Amino acid sequence: MQTKERARKPAISPQRKEDYAGWYQSVVAGADLAEMAHVRGCMVIKPWGYGIWSQIQTHLDRMIRDTGHENAYFPLFIPVSYLQKEADHVKGFAKEMAVVTHHRLEERDGKLVPAAPLTEPLVVRPTSETIIGESMHQWVKSYRDLPMLLNQWANVVRWEMRPRVFLRTTEFLWQEGHTAHATSEEAFEETVKMHRVYQTFAEQWCAIPVIPGEKPPSERFPGAERSFTIEAMMQDGKALQAGTSHFLGQNFARAADISFSDRDDTISHAWTTSWGLSTRMIGAIVMTHGDDDGLRVPPRISPEHLVIVPLERDGPDPAVTAFCEELAQRVQGKRFGPGVEVRVRIDARLHRSVDKKWQWIRRGAPLLVEVGPREVATRSLPVRLRSNVDEVRAIDVDALVENIGDLLDEIHNAYYAEADARLDAGLRRDITDWESFEAFFANDGPGFVVAPWCGWEECERRAADLAVTVRCIPFERGGDPGVCVICGERQGDSVIFGRSY
Amino acid sequence: MQTKERARKPAISPQRKEDYAGWYQSVVAGADLAEMAHVRGCMVIKPWGYGIWSQIQTHLDRMIRDTGHENAYFPLFIPVSYLQKEADHVKGFAKEMAVVTHHRLEERDGKLVPAAPLTEPLVVRPTSETIIGESMHQWVKSYRDLPMLLNQWANVVRWEMRPRVFLRTTEFLWQEGHTAHATSEEAFEETVKMHRVYQTFAEQWCAIPVIPGEKPPSERFPGAERSFTIEAMMQDGKALQAGTSHFLGQNFARAADISFSDRDDTISHAWTTSWGLSTRMIGAIVMTHGDDDGLRVPPRISPEHLVIVPLERDGPDPAVTAFCEELAQRVQGKRFGPGVEVRVRIDARLHRSVDKKWQWIRRGAPLLVEVGPREVATRSLPVRLRSNVDEVRAIDVDALVENIGDLLDEIHNAYYAEADARLDAGLRRDITDWESFEAFFANDGPGFVVAPWCGWEECERRAADLAVTVRCIPFERGGDPGVCVICGERQGDSVIFGRSY
Repeated sequence: MQTKERARKPAISPQRKEDYAGWYQSVVAGADLAEMAHVRGCMVIKPWGYGIWSQIQTHLDRMIRDTGHENAYFPLFIPVSYLQKEADHVKGFAKEMAVVTHHRLEERDGKLVPAAPLTEPLVVRPTSETIIGESMHQWVKSYRDLPMLLNQWANVVRWEMRPRVFLRTTEFLWQEGHTAHATSEEAFEETVKMHRVYQTFAEQWCAIPVIPGEKPPSERFPGAERSFTIEAMMQDGKALQAGTSHFLGQNFARAADISFSDRDDTISHAWTTSWGLSTRMIGAIVMTHGDDDGLRVPPRISPEHLVIVPLERDGPDPAVTAFCEELAQRVQGKRFGPGVEVRVRIDARLHRSVDKKWQWIRRGAPLLVEVGPREVATRSLPVRLRSNVDEVRAIDVDALVENIGDLLDEIHNAYYAEADARLDAGLRRDITDWESFEAFFANDGPGFVVAPWCGWEECERRAADLAVTVRCIPFERGGDPGVCVICGERQGDSVIFGRSY
Repeated sequence: MQTKERARKPAISPQRKEDYAGWYQSVVAGADLAEMAHVRGCMVIKPWGYGIWSQIQTHLDRMIRDTGHENAYFPLFIPVSYLQKEADHVKGFAKEMAVVTHHRLEERDGKLVPAAPLTEPLVVRPTSETIIGESMHQWVKSYRDLPMLLNQWANVVRWEMRPRVFLRTTEFLWQEGHTAHATSEEAFEETVKMHRVYQTFAEQWCAIPVIPGEKPPSERFPGAERSFTIEAMMQDGKALQAGTSHFLGQNFARAADISFSDRDDTISHAWTTSWGLSTRMIGAIVMTHGDDDGLRVPPRISPEHLVIVPLERDGPDPAVTAFCEELAQRVQGKRFGPGVEVRVRIDARLHRSVDKKWQWIRRGAPLLVEVGPREVATRSLPVRLRSNVDEVRAIDVDALVENIGDLLDEIHNAYYAEADARLDAGLRRDITDWESFEAFFANDGPGFVVAPWCGWEECERRAADLAVTVRCIPFERGGDPGVCVICGERQGDSVIFGRSY
């Protein structure tokens, strides 16, 4: 966390070091991202938050289509009988299902009550393996129909007893990829490929460095044979699972009978995968890049890049308005990073300009300029980079037009470098026995322990008593195998231990 | 309908003239658009159908944002108590609600049954006026917060007893705009503006001419003061309501207490609107442009514009592959119509090329070329325009690259002209008394009757006995006021009568 002395009061209260959880809630509110609805556990995603989600959708969707997947849409409701076909799957989700039991409301004694009961209750999808499996069962006949590479953008519902905006909400938005393949090898390759797509997306678009790795058996998706995750470290040193990719073996293909005739006419079950990334990513962005003045949106997924606030003392000033519009027009459509188009907003709302300025700082728009008669006269603009909000750079208007892409790249790189340094510093490789392990987490870290684990459940349970889990067996940033940090007896591979959201 | 003699069997069975309803189902299936799911009343939207929906989203969303609206997202679940605040609204929807009553499943006697009942049942949103009203109640404080211009892309659920794919499904996808304004005039202006946006979208993007007009009181949205519609005529002469825009007065603002302090510090209720367009539009596209060989997708919303099918007798031929890729590369990204980028697909799947060709004809891709060694040698391509599928034009490869935009514009214009001529021909202005009115509809039209209606419910009911409704009081393509065609007594304005989907 930044320790720099400030002459002014931060825009967000409480600050991170005072109360991290309270700070998170305040940033989400102060940046106009979302709020919890009166409907228990559900959230309202406000325009700025939804704008970020739209950018995530746009860019991740392109990556998903570029890897050969097609979008489709499957029903919201799943008959209970579909779920029952995969025993582990239903066990994993049964406790958090929204169940539809009636299809009408009727007035009785002045109260509206459920009427017209359904013969078979329906659950609102918590994930769509079972319902998509029913379609794949019909669509897949021959090896020529494989691979079948589908993706869906949708809302899903998992009943949450302790909801937290973006991180754990009863309803959330996501994409879920579902694919079927002729061979185990091909399905496994797909699983790993999409895992790496998530890593690329987190790092190159959201400026969030992650540790890619495999989940231990206890943390697998219900019904999966292997699960892969990208784990990010939040500013309080806790882990956030930001995207997962699952190799489902033939479990769901057997459950839904997804089978095909091969070149030699033998009939086999397909091999399937699924992978998802959700609005939770917005929570990860807040907790990776936010500071005590609010959110800082990584430029490549920011709904706006340059916000222009006109300074008009007594109503609209035609010279200022014209200047702002000309600037917007010249900057609009320039490109930065991997080809992202620059978006500009002139904030001409009736509110006081100082309020507007601080609103955009709290929202985390990457670049902010205030334009008044003096700027129009000098053509020198006070440009505020959200990466260092107290510094204002005087930039000539032509230079700003010319270099806006560089400025946005600079901000992206600064965010990534800051998060990367924090992740590296938070990876503790010096904790090699149970006593220091216990002491480290008793003190709330902060950070992850990189150390060997023997793989035994008994040791996993001891960690769980400290609310610590094996986040993953890492493919990057890991350590050497050795003696288990928990039992101090058995050998094992190096894993990432941490507390998580 | 086309009557042209064909040398070959049509790709779709039954044909339109044999069984229109059966033809519709066959086109939806044959074009790989969607299928009804096993889940009662719900549909699975397949990649080609979802691709069309994505194009509708992309272009309509831009029009919605260009008119100043911002996207947001509100909860799927609505507490019954919210609905009860607006009496007409709840009465209009109570019969078709999916009701969530439990939040868990538990195994009892080997069966999964609903457990953990909710204190207050939740309905799955049939539309979001009431839930968005709760947020607007919190967000709107002062006149400075108005107008509040929101839009949401979402799934909604209305329990359908007689579902029909795209036209009436229990779950469907749509956008719903919700706005709040300081004055009645401004809200009314918004309602009409978005009504016209829908007309422009239907005509210029979907090539569907529509009649814009106002709904009679009996057909208003439950809770609205005035409702506006765009009505399209399908090939069987029936009407399809393709988009609606509602002036809600202060009804919902009073129900949810959306109020603001004005410049003079008085507190008033806001004036609200709502407007929506759904996946039903895909049904309208099928029934406007489809022919006996399947769908014909209007180019501006087609997921692909040029499909290239390589003709390879014995596996991939490097010269053919290279030629197809070069052609795709040269055409990709050219523009047509109001700036739509040309999209190309090379269909290199393992299926037989003749099967692929007919699949793309049934799907209605605007342009299709088959490329084999002969085409590579001569550089002359057999281009099939889906607007007239039995004609193949020999076009030199350079000319195709040069003129592809013109070809796509030609197809768009042909579709619009055909539908426009049919609509005009189907508007019967010569039916001026009850006997001919009755005879016209007894014979299934086909078409709409344009004639005066006195506005009395009694006359409306007589029409309803023939399953005929007042589709709208038209703003275009209407007639002169005069004596009511039904009672033959009272005077009234000219309206559009028709049977509808």
